[in-house]
Parts: sequence; structure tokens; C-alpha cells
Amino acid sequence: MELEYVLPGEIEGRSFEIITKELKEKGIEIPEDRAFLVKRAIHTTADFDYASTMYFSDNAIEIAINLIKSGTDIVTDTNMALSGVNKKELFKHGGEVHCFMADEDVAKEAKERGITRAAVSMERASKLQKPVIFAIGNAPTALINLREMYDAGSFMPAFVIGVPVGFVNVEAAKELIIATDIPCIINRGRKGGSNVAAAICNALLYRIRDTEK
Amino acid sequence: MELEYVLPGEIEGRSFEIITKELKEKGIEIPEDRAFLVKRAIHTTADFDYASTMYFSDNAIEIAINLIKSGTDIVTDTNMALSGVNKKELFKHGGEVHCFMADEDVAKEAKERGITRAAVSMERASKLQKPVIFAIGNAPTALINLREMYDAGSFMPAFVIGVPVGFVNVEAAKELIIATDIPCIINRGRKGGSNVAAAICNALLYRIRDTEK
Repeated sequence: MELEYVLPGEIEGRSFEIITKELKEKGIEIPEDRAFLVKRAIHTTADFDYASTMYFSDNAIEIAINLIKSGTDIVTDTNMALSGVNKKELFKHGGEVHCFMADEDVAKEAKERGITRAAVSMERASKLQKPVIFAIGNAPTALINLREMYDAGSFMPAFVIGVPVGFVNVEAAKELIIATDIPCIINRGRKGGSNVAAAICNALLYRIRDTEK
Repeated sequence: MELEYVLPGEIEGRSFEIITKELKEKGIEIPEDRAFLVKRAIHTTADFDYASTMYFSDNAIEIAINLIKSGTDIVTDTNMALSGVNKKELFKHGGEVHCFMADEDVAKEAKERGITRAAVSMERASKLQKPVIFAIGNAPTALINLREMYDAGSFMPAFVIGVPVGFVNVEAAKELIIATDIPCIINRGRKGGSNVAAAICNALLYRIRDTEK
């Protein structure tokens, strides 16, 4: 196997060319308005399954982009996802990223109530007093908690990026969000991850940057 | 799709049960001594491909575990991977995690020399004056640079966890490490990621914790 010589600044562009070419070879067509985002999920995972499992609610991309442009904060369910979001791009619009998972009092409250830290973190996020985009790459219980608050009428997320990964309640939790009128981008099935959650945030951020050039 | 009631503390165990069951159903057998690690990669990605693509050099797990136990540091090629490594468990053995990618002078030097930040980061890591486990989940150029230093006789990594993801030189860079006598765990092919790099570190850390109970 030989190394291909690609300049550092051109590696990402070359990667997207390869992804575009292989999607075509596989006969997979992704609607133009969302291809940039699905391709970034594939770029992050080298997994073409994302081409067929990503669900977008009506006008999801337009809604997410408008939220970011108006300074909406992002709340993640892992520090890994927080770490992966391009904070420089988000900050340009006035937004911040939060993750409450590692807060000591979150762990304490979760233990006392017998629920997950992710569920407690969602409740914290619901009290931020501004619209929130949730980027959930790990904990299905985060999505379940958001749905419970929605059902109770106590909180309406501005947007949910729902891509937890795993084997216990992951698929069902994603469907619980899809069944509401919360604007969302969800990767149906078991797959996802903190890396995918961050990649979707960044896809939206780079879309804004690149179309405003 | 119905939610299954699982206590927070039992979700991970239940996930591993499902993975074990499905590996059996697929007729995939993983040698007992490495199953814990391969299953954690699957747990992190919900991708069973990892069952057939993970390469282990001779005695790789024993070597990695002994390095961790003797306080070896870990160097990652992304802040996401750094963020995902269980620092509390690593610190118990005296080890630390480093990532030089976001250092301003690394970016400056990379630009001047026309190489990637990952390559410059590896050179920084080679000067740490102690053995280093590299956990590479993103940049094939990190692996290429490690191989170049190895070929030049200027540096020998103590261990390489080589799981970059992507489309440009990723597969070839992994084979460059496999072809040496550097102890390593490599996920052959395009797949991997910062999440997988962190998961492999954590699999080793939890193995130590759980066998020393």
C-alpha cells in the first residue's frame, strides 16, 4: 500500500471527494441540502451506514442554522463531544457549549434519585434561560429525559441532535424524539457517538462559515 | 419499540452481554485475552466490524498493561481522545495524558514546515524523556511521523494504539506501524476515531482495575 502525497490543507477536501465518489458508486443519493452533514458523519466514522440512517425533521437544517446564527448554546452529554465542537466558530455567533456530566453535584443528585447523570444534566440544561441545542452522542437516557420534560410541558428543547450509540434503549430513545414536534437530526439505529454529535455541530458551523464567505 | 428498564449502574454490563450474545450469533470468536478490548471498541461504536479488523502485535495487551502499571504517559492526537481517557484510573498508576495538537507553537511550526500539526505533535512527544503510549485516533500523519522517527533511529515509541479514521493514507499508515517491531494495537482499514482510541485506553485501564480487585 503506497502513501498518497496530499498537502496538509488538502486532506479534508480529498477525503470528501472520495466519500462523494464512493456514495455515487454505491448508488446512494443524498438530498443536496443535507449531503454536507451526512458526509461529515461518514468522514468522522468511515462508516457509510450513516448515508441511510440519518433522519431530519422538517426544515431541520435551516432551523439549526438559524438557531446557531442567533447565538443559541449547545449542551452535550459528554466532555468528549464538548471537546470536539469547534468553539471558535460557535463563539463567533455568541453561542457557548456546556456539559454538566462531570459536575460533582450532578453525580450526587443522580445517585440519590437513582437516575443517570445524563438525565440530571438535561434538567440542568433546561434551566439555562435561553434556547438550547442538545447534542447527545452517548446517553439514551438524556433523550428519554428530554421527552419526559416535553410530555410534562415543562420544557421544549430548541433542537435535538440525537445520536447516542449503544445497545440498551438507544433505538427506542431516538424514536421517542422523532415522534414529537421537536426539530431534530437523529441517527436511527444503534450507531452514533460523541464524535458524531460533535461532527454534526461542526458540519452546521462550517456550513455557515462557508456560505457566508 | 419499548423501553427496557435497566438500572443506571447496570447499563454497561447489559450492553456487554448483548455484544457477547450477538458475536456468538454471528459465529465470531475472539481470543479470550483480547475479547474485553474488542468488545469495548464495539460498545463505543455499535460497529461489529471491529471484531474482525483489530490487529495485536505479540503480547500486545500484556505489554500495554505493564506500561500503564509502571506509570507510562499517554499521548493523543486530539483533545477529544484526551478528554475520553479515564484520567483518574491512569493517574492511579502515575501516568498522565498529553495532547499537543492545540498548542499555538505547534500550529506555527507545522505551517512553517508544511507538515501536519499531528506530525509536529509526535516530535514533541518524542522529547518527553519517558516512555510513551501513543493513542492515535485521528491523524494518519501521526503514525507516518512515528515511523519516520523509528526508521531514523531517533525515537522508539513504547506502544502505539493506532486507530485513525479516514480516507487519505489511513490504511497505509497503519500498515507502516504493523511492519515494525513497535508493540501495537491497530485497527486495520479505514475505521477508528478519537472515541475508539480513548475506548482502547480505557479498556486497558479497566482491565487492570477489575483484575486487581
